[in-house]
Amino acid sequence: MKKVIIDTDPGIDDAMAILFALQSPELEVLALTSVFGNVDIGQTTRNARQILDLAGRSDIVVSTGASQPLLHPFDGGAPFVHGENGLGNVQLPPPRAQLSGLPAAYFLIQQLLSSPDRLTIVALGPLTNLALAVRLEPRIVDKVERVILMGGAALIVGNVSPVAEANIHNDPEAAKIVFGAGWPLTMLGLNLTTQVVLDAAYVKALDDAKKPLTDFITSILPCYLDFYHTQCGRDDMDVHDLSAMVYAVAPDLFTAEEWYVEVETMGRCAGQTVVDYLGSWGQDPNVEVCVGVDAASLLDLFYERMTA
Amino acid sequence: MKKVIIDTDPGIDDAMAILFALQSPELEVLALTSVFGNVDIGQTTRNARQILDLAGRSDIVVSTGASQPLLHPFDGGAPFVHGENGLGNVQLPPPRAQLSGLPAAYFLIQQLLSSPDRLTIVALGPLTNLALAVRLEPRIVDKVERVILMGGAALIVGNVSPVAEANIHNDPEAAKIVFGAGWPLTMLGLNLTTQVVLDAAYVKALDDAKKPLTDFITSILPCYLDFYHTQCGRDDMDVHDLSAMVYAVAPDLFTAEEWYVEVETMGRCAGQTVVDYLGSWGQDPNVEVCVGVDAASLLDLFYERMTA
Repeated sequence: MKKVIIDTDPGIDDAMAILFALQSPELEVLALTSVFGNVDIGQTTRNARQILDLAGRSDIVVSTGASQPLLHPFDGGAPFVHGENGLGNVQLPPPRAQLSGLPAAYFLIQQLLSSPDRLTIVALGPLTNLALAVRLEPRIVDKVERVILMGGAALIVGNVSPVAEANIHNDPEAAKIVFGAGWPLTMLGLNLTTQVVLDAAYVKALDDAKKPLTDFITSILPCYLDFYHTQCGRDDMDVHDLSAMVYAVAPDLFTAEEWYVEVETMGRCAGQTVVDYLGSWGQDPNVEVCVGVDAASLLDLFYERMTA
Repeated sequence: MKKVIIDTDPGIDDAMAILFALQSPELEVLALTSVFGNVDIGQTTRNARQILDLAGRSDIVVSTGASQPLLHPFDGGAPFVHGENGLGNVQLPPPRAQLSGLPAAYFLIQQLLSSPDRLTIVALGPLTNLALAVRLEPRIVDKVERVILMGGAALIVGNVSPVAEANIHNDPEAAKIVFGAGWPLTMLGLNLTTQVVLDAAYVKALDDAKKPLTDFITSILPCYLDFYHTQCGRDDMDVHDLSAMVYAVAPDLFTAEEWYVEVETMGRCAGQTVVDYLGSWGQDPNVEVCVGVDAASLLDLFYERMTA
């Protein structure tokens, strides 16, 4: 059983990833740390707690993380994708899951240093908490089994700039720190996550299941789907964060390459995850970059866990 | 008949593009301007003259251009691709085509300002000459019908860095000037040129034709093919510059998008042609970016002209 801490900015696809983790016996979810991103830090923290409640896991603690990137103000997030409240404008009961008294960066350090085992961190938002933690306490590198992150775009275009993906673009300097920290790191970027597409038939199957978790998911998805429909002319959607969590549960569904990746922080290309696929910079690989996935099996597994 | 000046750093694929231009009744080749690039300026200038001689066009003048990028020293070129002499180490008779007394940037200005018609510039190397010319004399913008260039990579990876193509990478600052100059500009980047592949059967057909130009081409190609074989494990090759010249002759073979493109000059991404395909920067399109090509017809046309 893999011990994980989920760093997250829920977010509709974060919610799906978290619920999948909580329903997966392969993972022991120790805690959630929140971060600004899809919506502001107050809302992401509240959402994280409410998602735990919904899954009957109010015993899991949430630690409040960064409210803004290292160098920039918070940009307002993406309410046009995730709804004003980050969960498709669906109202949930007041949160019951406990808040940690420690800020996320310090909480991460405390959890890692006090754990007898190495911990896996699944990062679904901007990487500000992880960057602060590793600069506050470099010794945590040795206590991290692996950082598994949704972010970046390997050898393809971005989604919030021509070259950058949202999580990395939201705090390029933090991402640069995290990519250079020296811990085992697996990246699931847009090149991977766009291979996992939820179409109308899949959403209908979730809807038809009439289970508490599938009912919740299908209640928050219309907002997300509406963005894809209006902005991209699509009737289906990529559910980015889910792939990172499925990787934590079932890495055999994925193929990957070991590459040197550097995050650009300057100029027009800020937030780009530059993948030296040519090896022309002569650096040792620092990232396991996921490049392929058995998307059908991934979606089957998600359905199975959500309806269990 | 389109009046063209070819700015070039021959180069095996430059040679093929120049020969194609000289054999095409749609073009009136007024002059060649040389630039450092595949090999040094002395050699590219010599090669340009010898290619003209070979085609029986020693009447066309060559003007010697920049020996180095605007901000950097010359990096030594790519003799491992094009041979030590830039033409596959094939020795040609001493050049007879005349040299202009004017350096290329000034020569371009003089040609453009004195021409009653607008001229097309086909640029097959680093863009240093064009950048110098337009900064020396901004009025030339109105005398340029179109700049057609081989360079960059639209929405895909680079070839000399993870994000940059060789011609742009060889002088990113010059490219930034040229892309921002305000003249009509068509870009044939790696995304396009890698769609035009010369395989063994095609080379054999050229070889079997036993014409003077095909004999020359098949004599210089082994060096180029050897690079693809050794470095890329391929038995075929992309002939980048040729696509730009075919565009000048037969634009109907291509499809294109109007996009805003900016050249990054800083950091790890220097030389990247960043294509704002999302329109997220709110800038007017400045480049016609070729995205599709009828490669079979292109190759047929080249064969037809080389064997005419």
